[in-house]
This record gives sequence, C-alpha cells and structure tokens, in this order.
Amino acid sequence: MPTVSIVYHSGTGHTTVLAEAIAAGARSVPGTTVNLLSVEGKDIVEGRYKNEALLATLTVSDAIIFGSPTYMAGPSGQFKCFADATGGIWFNQQWKDKLAAGFSVSGTPSGDKLNTIEYFFLLSQQHSMVWIGTGLLPLAEGRLNRYGVFSGAAAASGYEPPSVKPDADDKDTGAHLGKRVAEAAARWTQ
Amino acid sequence: MPTVSIVYHSGTGHTTVLAEAIAAGARSVPGTTVNLLSVEGKDIVEGRYKNEALLATLTVSDAIIFGSPTYMAGPSGQFKCFADATGGIWFNQQWKDKLAAGFSVSGTPSGDKLNTIEYFFLLSQQHSMVWIGTGLLPLAEGRLNRYGVFSGAAAASGYEPPSVKPDADDKDTGAHLGKRVAEAAARWTQ
Amino acid sequence: MPTVSIVYHSGTGHTTVLAEAIAAGARSVPGTTVNLLSVEGKDIVEGRYKNEALLATLTVSDAIIFGSPTYMAGPSGQFKCFADATGGIWFNQQWKDKLAAGFSVSGTPSGDKLNTIEYFFLLSQQHSMVWIGTGLLPLAEGRLNRYGVFSGAAAASGYEPPSVKPDADDKDTGAHLGKRVAEAAARWTQ
Amino acid sequence: MPTVSIVYHSGTGHTTVLAEAIAAGARSVPGTTVNLLSVEGKDIVEGRYKNEALLATLTVSDAIIFGSPTYMAGPSGQFKCFADATGGIWFNQQWKDKLAAGFSVSGTPSGDKLNTIEYFFLLSQQHSMVWIGTGLLPLAEGRLNRYGVFSGAAAASGYEPPSVKPDADDKDTGAHLGKRVAEAAARWTQ
Repeated sequence: MPTVSIVYHSGTGHTTVLAEAIAAGARSVPGTTVNLLSVEGKDIVEGRYKNEALLATLTVSDAIIFGSPTYMAGPSGQFKCFADATGGIWFNQQWKDKLAAGFSVSGTPSGDKLNTIEYFFLLSQQHSMVWIGTGLLPLAEGRLNRYGVFSGAAAASGYEPPSVKPDADDKDTGAHLGKRVAEAAARWTQ
Repeated sequence: MPTVSIVYHSGTGHTTVLAEAIAAGARSVPGTTVNLLSVEGKDIVEGRYKNEALLATLTVSDAIIFGSPTYMAGPSGQFKCFADATGGIWFNQQWKDKLAAGFSVSGTPSGDKLNTIEYFFLLSQQHSMVWIGTGLLPLAEGRLNRYGVFSGAAAASGYEPPSVKPDADDKDTGAHLGKRVAEAAARWTQ
Repeated sequence: MPTVSIVYHSGTGHTTVLAEAIAAGARSVPGTTVNLLSVEGKDIVEGRYKNEALLATLTVSDAIIFGSPTYMAGPSGQFKCFADATGGIWFNQQWKDKLAAGFSVSGTPSGDKLNTIEYFFLLSQQHSMVWIGTGLLPLAEGRLNRYGVFSGAAAASGYEPPSVKPDADDKDTGAHLGKRVAEAAARWTQ
Repeated sequence: MPTVSIVYHSGTGHTTVLAEAIAAGARSVPGTTVNLLSVEGKDIVEGRYKNEALLATLTVSDAIIFGSPTYMAGPSGQFKCFADATGGIWFNQQWKDKLAAGFSVSGTPSGDKLNTIEYFFLLSQQHSMVWIGTGLLPLAEGRLNRYGVFSGAAAASGYEPPSVKPDADDKDTGAHLGKRVAEAAARWTQ
C-alpha cells in the first residue's frame, strides 16, 4: 500500500491544476495513498523554508513527485528554498531509494521547462532516489505528451487562466504520470 | 535472476577500466548475469551504427548501464552513433521499464562529465526507463564519489595511462554503482 | 567585414531548411560573408570525422553557428563525430573569442531540443567562444520563437516533409538568429 | 569605460571570497567600474525578492556576472528568488545585449556546479544577454581551471572555512574570469 506525495509550488494556480491531475492519476491505482502538498510563501523566512511537518510527510512516503512553474528558466525561487531545506534529509540520506518524478508549467510549449525537470532529476539523485519519467511517446493515444517531453510532465499555460489551461490533454498527461508512479511504487515496495 | 548489461565506448582504454569495475560490482550480487558490451568504431558506417546482435542483447536485459568518455563536452561521437541506432527500439518502446544508469571518464575532476551523464539520463527517459544513480554521498566510506557526482559514476584519467587511472577510488565508485544497479534489478524484477 | 559560418548535419533535410533560413538572415546584413557547411556521413570513417578543409573554413570565421537535428535526446551522432574532430583546435584554442550560436530541429515543439542547444553551448565554452542566443521573447512580432526557446533557434518538423516544415514562423525565427549573429560579429570584430 | 557588476548570494562566505577575487580581476582592467552586489536574505519576503536599487544598478551595467553556491544541485533559493524578481526586466528586455558570466562554489570538485552555471546561462539567454566563459584550458598556467569547468568559474570549499577555501588557484581562476569579462565589455561597448 504505497504512499505517493506530490510537493509543488504554484504562483498563479496553473501548477496546482497539473498537480491535482497528477494526484487523481495516482489515486486511480487501488491502494495508493496520495498527499498533495503545497509549498507556501509564508513558510519562507528570509529565503529559508521552514515546515517540518511537510518534510516529515515526504520522509514517510514511498514516492515524491516534485512540481513547480518554470520561472526565469528554472524552478521557482519558492520551490528552490524548499529544496534547500532538505539538506539535513540529504545528509542523512533519509529519502534514499524512494521513487521520484517531476512536472512543470510555463507559458509556452517548450519554455526551458526541460531545465526545471532536469533540476528535479539532479535533486533526486543527490537524495539517491530512483527516477521515473512519463513513459509516453509523443502524441501517445493521439494527444498525450504532445510537446515531446519525456523526463517529466510538461504543460503550457498559454497566458490563459488556470480554469482554461493546462488543458485536458496536458492534465491527462499529468494523470498518466501520476498513475505510472503509483504503479511503480507498488512494484518497487512489494 | 536479473541480467545487467553495460554498453560503452572507450577511445583510450580508460572507460574500459571503469566499465570492468562496474561489471565486477554487478557480478558481486549473486544470481546476476552481466554483459559487458563495447561499441566499436568498425560498426559505424558513415556515421550510422549497425550491430543488431548487440542491440538484441540489450533488449533482453533488465538493466542497461551506459558509458562513454566525455569528449568535447558530451558523450563520444561513437557512443552517440550507437544511441541513434536505438530509434527503432524507442519507437516500439522495447526498453520500457528497464533500469538505466551511466558513467563517464574525462581528464579532469569535473570536465563537463555531468553533461554526459545527463545525456544518458535523457536518453533513458525517451526509452521510458527508470534511472538509478550512485547512491553515494561525497567521500562516502572516506573515498567514494570524491568529485561529488551523484547521478552517475564519474572518473578522472588525469592524463595517465589506463593502467594507472581511473584509480582505485574511482574504480570502487564504479563497482558500487554496478552493485547498486544489480540489487535494484533484483528488487524491480522479482 | 565579418565571416559567419553555419556548420550543421541534416538527416532528412529539415535541418537544412532551417540552416538555409539562418544563412539568409546572416546574408541580409551588408558586408557579411556566409558559409553554409554540411557535415556529411561520407566523411565519417569508423566514427571519426575527417574533413580538414571544412575545419579550416571554420577556423578563419568570426562566428560559427552549430546545427543538428535532435536525435534520441541530443545532437546527431554525425554532428558529435564532427565535434570530436575539433579536439586539436580546442587544444590550441584556435576558436577562442569567436562568436557561437546554435539551432536544432525535432518532430515535436519541445522534444529535448533544449539539451541539443545546451550541448552546442558547452562545446562553445570548451572552445572559449562567446555565445549569442535568439534575442527573442516568446511570440515576438506575434509569431517568432513560439516554443519559448531562448538559447538557440528551435524548429518542429511535425512529421511533415522538409518542403512543408519547418514552417515560415520557424524559418523566420532562424533568419532572425542569423541576422543577430551577423550584427554581433560586425560589432565584436570592428 | 564599461561597468561590470557581480551579483551573488553567499550562505557561508565561500562564494563571497570567489566574488571578491572576480571583482579584483575585473578592476585590474583600467577604466572598468566594478559593482559587487550581494543578494541578502532580508530582502526576501515570503519567497519574493525586493530590492529595486540593486536591480537598477544591474540595469545600468554593461556586464553582469552571476554567482551562487550550489545547494542541493542548483543555485541557492535566495539567488533564485532574486532571479525571479527580474521578470519585469525580462519582459521589457532591459538587459538585452549585456554581457553575462557566472560562478559557483560547492564542497566537492564537481558537485553539480555545472548545473548551477548552466542555469545562469539559461537565465542570461532569456534576458538576451551574451555569454562569456572562463576562456581557460584545464590546468592553464599550471594551476587555473583545475576541475575542468569551462562555462564559468568553479571553486571547491572542501569543508574548510572561507579563510582557507576557495584557495589561491580557485581565486585566481575567478580573477581570470573577471578580467576576461571586463576586457570583453570594453571591446563590446567601444
């Protein structure tokens, strides 16, 4: 009965929409416990993130999916402050052998989102985690992964409000990733 | 009884030394079958790699560890020609859900090796594989992963012959990665 | 009177289309000499590229623009064999302080093209070159850089023949980059 | 008479040492005005950086050198909050055609510092800046760039206090970069 946690920052609500789609995908796998955890600006004091409860929830998870908008070519400052707060967990390798995955949203189809996802990957490798990507060919099922991003789920906000974008195809790409991670967690932890 | 294959190119023999150390690490896990497969220049005709037998051996493996020297900031041309030859395997997703890992050698401690390892990662993600890193803190056991590369095994040739470098610490870092991948393959395929 | 050289590999002709658009943009700057140089498979013998005349033309240029399709998450094997052949030029730093830029084509809007362009960047940095990107906001002039790639020119082939894709917007994005590099070369070499 | 600004975050003082060495190198070029600007945690409120005076100083510079420790595989959260605060400058392309460079410090010789420097590069490309690297072969002058990082200046803290590390070789590598950027700024703005 694996636990999959999604930890993300959202500035405008678009990344929240994708996070919720991923959570729904993970929940569709019977027996999976899903935590949807938001990194909030109020927990960042002078650039240092402090929320021991959130970190503790992650540490008892089997898989962690990292999410952030792509701001100025990388993960948001808020997400990065959160990541830096995992230094003690890293030093004690408390996340070792957990599964990891990632997702990002930006205005345009490409928009340096690959760099944000690669950052999540490198973060996961410092933590000795095991990385799972989307597992989707471009235009899988005719419409998933239409941008051709393989290492994580990518969505475009297209300068529309979160009620409109990410659209159904991007959300279903996210749901596919959530389901894939939950299935992998069941296999990995059996 | 998992099969771990190591596929690598070596120009001067240094990468072969690291590949052999990784193979020894994988073989140290009881029940593991290890294939050590070299990408040879003679199989590259006008920039296109052709060796169906080697590709077939990889396709029946449970884990594939990619290796190359870092030449001019990335994997060697020979390795890249091999990677391009996996396009048909990619289209049919024949490597989906296999484990993946990587390693690289260059003259200096850093030397853009991270970019080569990130390339292996991105290649693995197009193939929908699951990535395993070194699982080592810097200077683990006092001497492993001394360069601080987490996503794959890195070694320095230091402009010495292959009989001298990679040295024992770098080879043992590689052996650790091989063992880790073999153990993960046993867990993943059970 | 600067010289701008474009050196690229094209497997299916799509990258040639983008290369030609970039060349046209560079030629639009009065006084610019433009060389359009193709990396050919016939010059690759057992994975080693040999064409001293092409390398010599690059060495007497003021700017070099690198181009390749994105194959299996990176530059094509053929391009990488060419890049490896610049090792002697690197050791003698014969391209130091030249301008550099890059471009890539793949089927999808994103498609790991960013990694190919980042590779060109890292190659340029080993050569101590100075990097110029597109200089375009997303959807500049309503239609340029629509994918949101800043560090180089990106185009999508969309599984259409080279007569159809890259389309006019992608070609004009390339032309903009060519013009920008030619203008920078005039400024830099004055 | 160009102006070179160095904007950096330092958590433990090691990055300040490298920043000061770079500043000294830039100042060694006659006629160069150098600004050494520190990103401070007190200017970050709930993850948002606010310091209009610092941003205005950068906007009237000819070259900007970005610096940060590598924390958890990327630039520090504090630096990233600063970078996100340049979104308005980006939208108005106020840094277009300025020169850019970067540097990073971490405990180990490699330590994912390349990823931090690549982030600075991608940030600079969104701003349509022109990137300058170290211009140094490995072990140039017998001791500069000993880690083999080309795209920016890298230093190792080696778990020593800032009074000891970065050591003289790393500081001189930084000074070389500062001098190179100042000379390029003079050439570019003449």
